[in-house]
Formats: sequence, structure tokens, C-alpha cells
Amino acid sequence: MRKKKFGIAIVGGSGYGAGELLRLLTNHPEIEAACVVSKSHAGKSVTSVHTHLEGVTDLKFSESLTPNWETGYSGAAVVCGVPTGHAANTISELIKNGLANGIKIIDLSGDLRLRDATLHQKHYAEVPYSEEVRLSAVYGLPELVSADEISKARVITNPGCLATAAILALAPLRGIKGVTSVSVDAKTGTSGAGREPQAAMHHPSRALDCTAYKVLEHRHEPEILQALGDEFYPRDSFMFVPHLLPLSRGCLISCYITCQDDTSAAAAVKKYKSLYSTAKFVRLRDRPVRLVDIVGTNFCDLHVVARGKQLVVTSALDNLGKGMASQCIQNLNIIFGLTQETGLMAPALGPV
Amino acid sequence: MRKKKFGIAIVGGSGYGAGELLRLLTNHPEIEAACVVSKSHAGKSVTSVHTHLEGVTDLKFSESLTPNWETGYSGAAVVCGVPTGHAANTISELIKNGLANGIKIIDLSGDLRLRDATLHQKHYAEVPYSEEVRLSAVYGLPELVSADEISKARVITNPGCLATAAILALAPLRGIKGVTSVSVDAKTGTSGAGREPQAAMHHPSRALDCTAYKVLEHRHEPEILQALGDEFYPRDSFMFVPHLLPLSRGCLISCYITCQDDTSAAAAVKKYKSLYSTAKFVRLRDRPVRLVDIVGTNFCDLHVVARGKQLVVTSALDNLGKGMASQCIQNLNIIFGLTQETGLMAPALGPV
Amino acid sequence: MRKKKFGIAIVGGSGYGAGELLRLLTNHPEIEAACVVSKSHAGKSVTSVHTHLEGVTDLKFSESLTPNWETGYSGAAVVCGVPTGHAANTISELIKNGLANGIKIIDLSGDLRLRDATLHQKHYAEVPYSEEVRLSAVYGLPELVSADEISKARVITNPGCLATAAILALAPLRGIKGVTSVSVDAKTGTSGAGREPQAAMHHPSRALDCTAYKVLEHRHEPEILQALGDEFYPRDSFMFVPHLLPLSRGCLISCYITCQDDTSAAAAVKKYKSLYSTAKFVRLRDRPVRLVDIVGTNFCDLHVVARGKQLVVTSALDNLGKGMASQCIQNLNIIFGLTQETGLMAPALGPV
Amino acid sequence: MRKKKFGIAIVGGSGYGAGELLRLLTNHPEIEAACVVSKSHAGKSVTSVHTHLEGVTDLKFSESLTPNWETGYSGAAVVCGVPTGHAANTISELIKNGLANGIKIIDLSGDLRLRDATLHQKHYAEVPYSEEVRLSAVYGLPELVSADEISKARVITNPGCLATAAILALAPLRGIKGVTSVSVDAKTGTSGAGREPQAAMHHPSRALDCTAYKVLEHRHEPEILQALGDEFYPRDSFMFVPHLLPLSRGCLISCYITCQDDTSAAAAVKKYKSLYSTAKFVRLRDRPVRLVDIVGTNFCDLHVVARGKQLVVTSALDNLGKGMASQCIQNLNIIFGLTQETGLMAPALGPV
Repeated sequence: MRKKKFGIAIVGGSGYGAGELLRLLTNHPEIEAACVVSKSHAGKSVTSVHTHLEGVTDLKFSESLTPNWETGYSGAAVVCGVPTGHAANTISELIKNGLANGIKIIDLSGDLRLRDATLHQKHYAEVPYSEEVRLSAVYGLPELVSADEISKARVITNPGCLATAAILALAPLRGIKGVTSVSVDAKTGTSGAGREPQAAMHHPSRALDCTAYKVLEHRHEPEILQALGDEFYPRDSFMFVPHLLPLSRGCLISCYITCQDDTSAAAAVKKYKSLYSTAKFVRLRDRPVRLVDIVGTNFCDLHVVARGKQLVVTSALDNLGKGMASQCIQNLNIIFGLTQETGLMAPALGPV
Repeated sequence: MRKKKFGIAIVGGSGYGAGELLRLLTNHPEIEAACVVSKSHAGKSVTSVHTHLEGVTDLKFSESLTPNWETGYSGAAVVCGVPTGHAANTISELIKNGLANGIKIIDLSGDLRLRDATLHQKHYAEVPYSEEVRLSAVYGLPELVSADEISKARVITNPGCLATAAILALAPLRGIKGVTSVSVDAKTGTSGAGREPQAAMHHPSRALDCTAYKVLEHRHEPEILQALGDEFYPRDSFMFVPHLLPLSRGCLISCYITCQDDTSAAAAVKKYKSLYSTAKFVRLRDRPVRLVDIVGTNFCDLHVVARGKQLVVTSALDNLGKGMASQCIQNLNIIFGLTQETGLMAPALGPV
Repeated sequence: MRKKKFGIAIVGGSGYGAGELLRLLTNHPEIEAACVVSKSHAGKSVTSVHTHLEGVTDLKFSESLTPNWETGYSGAAVVCGVPTGHAANTISELIKNGLANGIKIIDLSGDLRLRDATLHQKHYAEVPYSEEVRLSAVYGLPELVSADEISKARVITNPGCLATAAILALAPLRGIKGVTSVSVDAKTGTSGAGREPQAAMHHPSRALDCTAYKVLEHRHEPEILQALGDEFYPRDSFMFVPHLLPLSRGCLISCYITCQDDTSAAAAVKKYKSLYSTAKFVRLRDRPVRLVDIVGTNFCDLHVVARGKQLVVTSALDNLGKGMASQCIQNLNIIFGLTQETGLMAPALGPV
Repeated sequence: MRKKKFGIAIVGGSGYGAGELLRLLTNHPEIEAACVVSKSHAGKSVTSVHTHLEGVTDLKFSESLTPNWETGYSGAAVVCGVPTGHAANTISELIKNGLANGIKIIDLSGDLRLRDATLHQKHYAEVPYSEEVRLSAVYGLPELVSADEISKARVITNPGCLATAAILALAPLRGIKGVTSVSVDAKTGTSGAGREPQAAMHHPSRALDCTAYKVLEHRHEPEILQALGDEFYPRDSFMFVPHLLPLSRGCLISCYITCQDDTSAAAAVKKYKSLYSTAKFVRLRDRPVRLVDIVGTNFCDLHVVARGKQLVVTSALDNLGKGMASQCIQNLNIIFGLTQETGLMAPALGPV
């Protein structure tokens, strides 16, 4: 007898995150999309928006969760792909409307990521949220947060893309008191901005440019510091600046780390090896990391260079992969009791 | 005593065409921008929109033509950079409101290009136009239309970018009866779509793509045939399909030409050399043309390959240069009695 | 008991084709790479060259076929990824050196594709070949050549990338006598040129360009005509011109087709639907095809527009996918008696 | 009577620097190229290599300096565009062979930039140099080095591209003791690598990537510190890491600056305004700098953001412009007693 699969519903199914999730699930042996909700495209085929899925899916967008969509599956979950600013509300209503208790929710937006109320209001001012939902959400970064904690949560807030790249690059520094300052230069493709056209992502103006934005004001900065916690000592000497690259997918993070002495730096280098020696999705490379090695995957590549008391760590991941949809699948695997790498080991297209 | 300059006003001053015009005029010894009109940016500095002009212009956008803007110049003209669909109306009103008779108007839009009423309605259905204005407009392609005709017109309709590339590539075929069919594959950068963000020009979706659009339905097809006229014999065996390239500037046109025999093809090859032997802005190259040789310039590069009765002609120009703003300056030079190449001989950045 | 797999050896394992083959095989349930030969990288890990495969393969390059590499597999084949000009010789030697008769060979190069001796010499002059090997090679395009014929061959010559895109776009025209002329404008990414650096693929000079090359002289032209055969009537009124796009992967082909009358054109349109109604890898789209829908896949997308007696067919595939490595896997599937789509249904990254 | 011009000879005339120099000189009213030397292209037209100059120059490459090339000019200079590693030797021989004393030399390579012998040997080990020539060379960065000093030098070493961007971004910090550490994240287009094809600049592998290289080992790091001098206090807490962008032209530098207190940071902010208030080529912008504003120009754009004791300074220039050829022209203007901005005020193509 065919083993039963796990089923998910995607709310906000026309966005880039949803499209990547659907793509990745075509290669997943245990989880499938049962229902894809999009108010604006209700009734149309999923491939009318996600045109690359032609021939591999017959799904149609529905107006809302179809009745009994979860029936017949071994387990079910909802992924919320609604844009930041609208997700918290969507999730509150899902719960209010009686989504079965056993059905967990993973939110791809930033709405529920910041726990501190002041920081939340500063960076997500526009978000109408239930504080209860926000404070109950568990941060779904499985390399840092235990599978146990993730699998017990009702709501999981999926980490930000640049944040994930930076957190994985800096997590080994936790507990090392000799680390005195960290500056993070983040470079990202344009797909992180979502599907909605906007002047800043207009092709003619973006195609040949590279520029910083939200200098020292980006909301992933507090997210990074929150995730790294109090054991991350250089938190008061921390800078984070994102830049736009003229490509669509991939984040590259360069971290400039100063220690008080060579010994602290050497200790840090060792921590990278020990912390990630068995990590399936973090690859310690022997040369500076490259976007072409990670696009489309759940891998985060890291590389460390030391010079005396200085360290440079480069980190690369796909903003729609480990920075969003494949990390969401990693969380789904945890929720459903599957091995974390199930369906997630496909490599990148590569340097050609 | 300093020689007096010619002055122009640009209406619709925030668009890409206006920006390129202003850039090119910084290098023009005889013509300068006297007034730049933009309703939506009135009062702001021109560099707030055209940020690359910082340090080379002090102009501000005005709400409408500033009174006496043309005073003190040796001559004056208005360039209309308002988007297609709105330009015809703007020009009608300029004339109705008493723009001095000696002040000629050059329209960068497509509103006034098609003379045939049926074709005009099919391709520019939305345009509220004065038929009188449209029929009085002269097609400003100085390689085909005499300087005399252009300089006598009240209104000059500046040719389309893809149209210019195709017309210059095909003009030598006029009068050769043995040419039996022509297919034109046009490839263009995204800046031709203008500054307004839209889904089709959203960077994440466009950056890695190439696709045809408006297949056999593009409005430059009738424009090309109209300009080539009745002496262009393959007009009933003609196809034109544009494609979007993942870059911002440049048009590359490949023309597939079939003749009834080798003799006709050989005659055509000779016509390219004779027709363009003294053309300043049409460069006959000895290898297939490249975008990097023409971006930012008023050059149109051509290359011809013959094989028996077949010809392939490639043609390249900058959609914002010879396809728009620098061709407009060429027309302004004609209007003001200057040598056509004045201020227009700067070469491209090149294949670097 | 675990079912036994099929094993392949890749000779010329450091090239782009080999890298893509290895990537695709990580997702194949029945076939695996048993041996990867590269003289220049012998002893190094496969990931030292194919860096994107880090963490998903432990293979090392070997100097030559390792003894008994095929032992323990249900079946075996050799894929030759040696560059055009060197492949024919490599294959002759493999056979001469006693490669077991049951082990078939698939050649990714162009060396064995042209059957006509004169055309072969014109386009592959430098190739030291055994005519016997060349004439015995079967053209491995499974949409046109029967699985039976492919599976009986000792040597399969894998089709060219641009050729595959054009052949699939034009195959429905076979047998329609009213088709009078066809011009094919091909646009391709740069990875088709292989891994070896060369001036024409130097990034600074290529990044912003589009240009035609080998105008009416490209060797895929005779390959296309050979594959389409005598029932392709416009073979004497045929033109093919490739162009370089500023991106690394993907071929887009636009075919300009003229028929003698509207009836012939209408007949052709119907043939597209009938010929490909059950094809797994040819997708008839309802709008012009896009590269973003096919990169990384074995799909070839097609779109047809008719206007009177004229047709425009656009066709897109990945030059390293359906144009090389995934088509090779499709042929391997046939050889090994597997369903053709085994391991090949993963969709593209998409228009993100 | 027509005023006499100044003439230059370019040795190493086929490189990217020479091409850009020739392009810029087509727009220079006082200086012209009198002789372009290229051993490998001797006898060919300059446009055979610099194809974008077709129609604007009739120059031919010569085997060596043509006799009396400088005759008839008001003054003359030699620009050495020979690659790093070969330039020092070329210059020594020019001098040894009796180049007239009044003819100054500007070297575009890195051969003569580092004064410290140990650092020079570490970073330019392969350079066969005359120490006398190296130590006599003046660093040609006119915003920092006086016109007087530049105009007195026999040999001027033109600054590196990334170095120029970083030095101009950091020069205002000189003399401020409260600046404690600086990390510089540099991003550059690929044309800085020169015209010679190489694996790292192969288009298929570079087109979709971003990666760091020579982490903490790049030779512009000591060049920057040497130029900033002893008054640049954070020199022992300094990091510099370059990255490759998937575009051909432009450098973007992001500097992460930590001060000991807010007062020092505020003092630094003021210094940017005072130091550059009259600089013609340094533009202080009111938002993060963009490559599209500077490509093709001699401008260096800067932007400063402060947060407490932290500063982020972004800096942008064209690696072939202010980072090479246009800065060379700025030095030539100084040598010849012209206003520094002569021929150098053309703006960028812009965000189109």
C-alpha cells in the first residue's frame, strides 16, 4: 500500500516564495501541496502565474482554504506566503476561524520575527498584529533552534534571507568574549523584494547598478542580533548594510570581524569547524563562497579567513531557498517528523 | 562677444528620453535646455530624477512652459517627451495655446507616426488626436527624409527605435524588384518601455530572460512599411517580431532577406555601400554588429552577409540614442541650420 | 533487497556538459555516475571543478576508465564529454581498446553528427574521425528518432543545442508542401562555448552585448536540415543565424515561416498540436516562450502564431539541458529500458 | 590661427585603459592622441581593436614610438598602458632610450605605486623594476596630491581603481584621532582584470555570480594606507576585501567606520563637507551612491550615514574612468597647465 503523504496549504500562493515552494515540492517524496490560495487569481491554474511549473502540476488557485483540504494526509500544515504587513493578520484570522489545532502555521513574512515590542513597531509599524500570536511564534532556523522547539510551536516564523546568511555566518562567535566588533556587508538579488513592480526594481534602472539601501536602518539588523542572543558579545559594535546586486537570486554576506587579540580570532576559527562539522546544509568551503554554488538550494556556504586578530567570513545562500522556501521545507520536515534533508539535497545549477 | 545659442523646452521632462536628451546636450556646443517641464516634479531639481546629471546642470522642473523661456536665444524648439497616448493631446494644446509660430515641435512618442487612419486607430486606439496635427507631422529620419522637408515642418514626429534600426537596415532594398520576402527579428533592451514600473519589466523576472512579444502585432511594423514606401517591394511578405533582451539599452535587428535570384542579392549588397557611403551616422561594418559599439551614440551600425539569393543584414543602434534622443538632436540641428553631426560624434563606451 | 542501478562513465568529465550531467544524476533514481575521467584533473575531487556539487558527491576524477567500473550495475554506458574535435578520436580508441560490446556510447560533441562527408569536412575539418564510427552513430533526438533505433545503436550522437531547439520547432512542418521558406533566428547563452576561456566569451566584453556570429555559416544549419530530412520542403529556402545573449544558459529560437497560402499555414498550426499532444518534454505554450521557464530542465517550450500565410514559431530550451545533458539522460533512459522521463521532470527555477 | 594642441603617445595601446583614454580624448578640446603603440597590433587600425571608435578616429597602431611624434604640439606626454608586471620595465627603457626630458610619463599599471620595498616585493614580486624610477614616481591623485607636485614629476603613477574609491572615501578621516577601525568592502566590475581572457572572467561562470577574492591580501590595501598616510589613525585596524560584480564597469566601496565616541563621528561627518565642498569630481550625494551615476565619468560619488559612533560611507566611481583613464586625463590636464576639468565633465549614461 502506498504510504500516505503530508499535505500543505499555501495562503498567498501567487508570490515568489510560494512559487519556489511549489517548485521544490515537485521533488519532495513525502510532502505535497494540497491547496493553493490566492484571492486575486482564484480559479486560474497555478501555472498561469508560476509558468515554469507547466507540465508538472495541475493545481488551481482557490479563493480560500478548500473544505477538508487536509483530509487523507498523514499530517498537514499551512504556509503563509502573504506579504509582510498582511501576514500577521491573515494568521490571526486563520486561528480565529478555527484552523484545527494540529495544523501548524509557518509564516514566510517578517511580521512575527521581532519579539521586542519597540523594535517591532519601529520596523513593522504598519503591521496589525496580535501580540499573543507574535510572542508565541518560534524562530524557525533549525541550525540554531532545536527541532524539538520547532515541532512544538503552533506558529513558526521563517527567518529573513539576509538574516539567515548573517546569523549562520556569525553564530560560531557566540560565547567568545574577545570578539569586539562586527560589520556585515550584505549583497542581495532583487527577488527578495517580491513580485510587485516598483521603481527600485524596474529593470532598466537596476540592470547595471549596485547600491546600498536602508543603510544602518534595515530590519534584519535587529533580527540578527535577536537570534544571536546575549552571548554574541559585539552586539553594541555591530553594523549591517544591505546592497542590491544586478541579479535576481542569491545573497552574499561579508562579515568583518575584529577580535581583541589573535587568540580570540584563532578560537573563533575553530568554532566554525566544530559547530558545523555535521551540519547538512552549511558547507565550510576552502575558498570565498560564490552565489552560483547555492542558487536554488537549501545550502548556506561559509568561508573564513583570519589575519592576526581579524576575521573575514563570507556567507552565501539563496534568498528564495535557504533564505525562504527551502528553509520552510526544512521546518516542514521537522514538523512532520521527517529527516531534515528530505527533498532538499538537489545542488545548484552551478558555475554554468 | 559670445555667440548666442539655440534653446529648447522639454515637455514631459522626467522620462528616459528627456534624461538622455539632457545628457547629450551637456556636450552640445550650440543648443541648450532652457526649460524642462514636469507636472509631477515641478519645483524639484532636474537631478532629483536624472541623478546622473548631478554637478553638470542646475535646471529645475517647471509646472509648464515658463514665460519667455525662448527669449535671448537665436532660435527655439519644443521637444515633447510625454508618453505615447498623451503626446498628441499635449501638442494640440501647445499649438492651441499660441506657441509662437516659429517654434517647432519634435514629438518623441508614437502618437503621430502613422498616417493611415485605420492603422493609426488599430495601433494607437487610445490616442486623442487632432488628425490635422498628425497629418502635418514630418517623419524625422534624416537619412531618408530631406533636411529641407524636416526644417519646413511645424511638427516633426521622431521615429521609433526598432523602426529606425529596421528602416536603415532595409532602405537600400527600395527599388530592387527582385527582393521577395523580408523577416525582421528585433531584439531590444528594456528602457524602451519607459520609466513607469510594470510587471513585464520587473527586474527579478526579466534579468535572465529573453522572449518575443507582440508577435506580428507590434506597431513598429506598419511604421517601417510606411517609411520604406511603395518602392519597397517585399511589403506583402514582411514579418516583424520584437524580443526583450536582459539589458537596458540597445536594439539589435537581424533581417532575413530572400531574393528571386543571386543577381538581385548582389545588386542589393552594392546598394548598401552606395547609399551609406557618405552617411555620418550609419557605419557599414565588416563583421556582425554589436550593441557595445553603439550604446549612448547616434550611430546605426550595419553589416551585410550574402549567400546566393539570400541576405542577412544586422543593424544596431541605441533605442534612447539614434532610436530617440540623439536622433531628436539630429533633427534639432537641422531645424537650427547646424551641421547634422554637431554635438553627436561621441563614441560608445565600447566592448570593455 | 536494494534494486541495482545503472552506471555510467563520463569521459571528459571536467566540462560543462559533464557538470550538468552529474548535477542531474543526483536526482535520478536509477542511474549513477560510476567513473568520471579527466586527464587534467586526475586524482582531484569532482567538486574541485564542479564546485556546486559539494556535499552531494564524493567522486574523484580518474586518469582513465577505472578497471571494472561497470561491475555490479544492471547495465552501463559511456558518455563522451570531450570537446568537439577530440571526441571522435576518443571514441574510436575506446572501441579499439575493447570497451565491452554491451556498453553503449553517447557523444555530446558535434564530431559525429553530420553524415554527409562533404558537409562534415566543411564544418568539422579538424576532426580526426573514423568514418565507420561516424556513419554508425544514431542521432539521439527521441522526439524524432524511435526508441528502438536509439537503443540498438552502439554509438549515439547527442544533438546540438540550437539544432534541437530548431528541429523541434520545425519538425511539424515536415510533409507540408506549402511551406516555402524558413528563417531561423537563434539566440543563445554563452555556456554553449564550453569552459575554456576565450576572447569572445570574456565577461567585460560580453556582459552588455548581443551580436550575431557565424552568419549563414554555422554548423547547426546542416545538422537541422539533415534531421528534418527530405520531407522538409523549404530546405532550399532556409537561413539560420545564431546570436550571443548576455546570459549563460538558454537558447531561444524564432522561426519565420512563409507558406504559399493560408491553408498551408493553418495545416501547419494543426500539426504542432497533433505531433506534440503526448510529448512529455515539448510544451506547447499559449504565449511566446521564455528562457526562465526552461533553464535547468529537459523541456522544450514552443509557441505558434499565424497571420495569413505566415507563421512565427518560438522555441526555448536549455543548451546544457535538453540541448545537451538532460537529453543525454533521456537517451540513457531509453538505452537502459527506463521510462523516458525518469529523473527528468524537475521544473526550472522560474521567472523569479 | 588655430591654437596648438597637446599630444600624447600611448604605449600599450590595445588594452582597456588605452581604449577608454582614446574614447575620452575624442571629447577633449586640447589634448589628442598622436601615437598609439601596440607591438601585437602594429599596422592595424586602432578601430580593429577599439571597435567602438569606428568613424571617430583614423589612427593606426605603431610598432614603437614613431619618430618626432611630439613635433608640432604645445607639449607632449607618454601614457603607459602596458599591463602590471611589464610597465616598470617599459618605462625604464623609454627613459634609457632618451625620451626627451620634457616629456613626462603617466603609468596606468600598479608597478610603481608602492614605495615600501617589502610591500612592493610582496605584492608585485614579478616586477622587474628600477628602484630609482619607482621612488621618483608621484602618486597622481589630484584630490590629495597638489597640482604642483604632480606637474613637477617626471613619472606619475596613476592610482588603482579600488584604491581611488577607498582613498577618496576615507581621506576626510585623516587627522581625526577618534576613528578606531575601518573595514572596506569593495565591489567591482570585471573590466579591471584587463582584456586578456582568463578562467575567472569567463562569461558563463561569471554572469550570475558575486564573490570575494584575495581576501585581506589585495595589493590595493597597502596602496590605500600609503596614500592616506600616518594621519590616518585606524591603519592598524583596517580591512579591505574586494568582490566581483556581474557587470563590466564600476566600483562600489562601502566603508564601515567605528569611532571611539559620537563626537568623533560627528567631526568626521563635517570633514566630508569641508574637504570636498569645492571638489569638481567628488560629489557628496544625499542618498547611497549608485554605479549608474558614474560609469564613463571622472566623478567619484560619496554618501555618509552616521549612527552614534558609527559611520558608513559609500563611494562609487568607474574603474576605467576616475579609476584609470579619466584620472589620467586629469593628470594630463595638470601637466599641460589646463583646468583640471577640461574635457572631463560629460555625465554618465544614467539610471536608464
